[in-house]
Amino acid sequence: MASPDTPTDITLDPDLDLILERIVPVRRELVWRAWTEPELLVQWFTPAPWSTAACEIDLRPGGLFRTVMRDPDGNEHPSDGCYLEVRPQERLVLTDALGPGYRPNPSSFMTAIIRMEDVEAGTRYTAIARHGSQESKTQHEQMGFVDGWGSALDQLVAASKGW
Amino acid sequence: MASPDTPTDITLDPDLDLILERIVPVRRELVWRAWTEPELLVQWFTPAPWSTAACEIDLRPGGLFRTVMRDPDGNEHPSDGCYLEVRPQERLVLTDALGPGYRPNPSSFMTAIIRMEDVEAGTRYTAIARHGSQESKTQHEQMGFVDGWGSALDQLVAASKGW
Repeated sequence: MASPDTPTDITLDPDLDLILERIVPVRRELVWRAWTEPELLVQWFTPAPWSTAACEIDLRPGGLFRTVMRDPDGNEHPSDGCYLEVRPQERLVLTDALGPGYRPNPSSFMTAIIRMEDVEAGTRYTAIARHGSQESKTQHEQMGFVDGWGSALDQLVAASKGW
Repeated sequence: MASPDTPTDITLDPDLDLILERIVPVRRELVWRAWTEPELLVQWFTPAPWSTAACEIDLRPGGLFRTVMRDPDGNEHPSDGCYLEVRPQERLVLTDALGPGYRPNPSSFMTAIIRMEDVEAGTRYTAIARHGSQESKTQHEQMGFVDGWGSALDQLVAASKGW
């Protein structure tokens, strides 16, 4: 039997998962901070011309992850999810299927798994978007997963120069 | 900021949560085993005349919790959920909103939080069913949450005499 501390297996399912993997010239510690400190996260999380109007973080399993995205017309799009795994500077798992205290949300889109590893040039950054159905995965692809998550990562790299 | 090891706050919401709390004459270690060993779980988990036809457990956050309930006509009702928190002999949190690897399930009904504490007479057993909407909570009440979970607990107490 696996120990309660054994990290979850994250074998990818190509029919349901989307993945972005890139090496970025940012120290792993800063990548972690970019994801876990609201005042840093709002600087890069949402691809322009959208922006992140607000962010709230309770960094522990079952803790709130709230973001409010603002579109170019000024409309706000809030999302309340929660953390599932918090392994400092290694792995962050969060989902919108559950809200704070693990309460089920009325609808869900995905679980995100963010991994970071040291490499000579900086950090190998892996972001996995895990969906429950092929429809959700395809919808996310058509919304521009690769470009969107890639642009956000570019914004992270640019913003990190000021941290 | 809370530490990643801080247990989630489980403040109850009377509009959305159902709770069963009882003191049972069973050692805490056996209550834990009853919930985490498939060969023990199948003996008590489903109130008669239904039964538990199968159970599969991967006891770690993100690990599979599968049960198959069998109704009196022989029809089987499978459910695949996953663990969220595994704190041996203290607290177990599991949900059907996510499957193994934290993949979102197409629909969800609840998150269950099971707590156990030593008391002189045995174990103070608390089971919380946390729903995402008042409709789900009311549906669960009408399905007979109190009687159902209470009967299952009676079955646990009876079966534990043989362990």
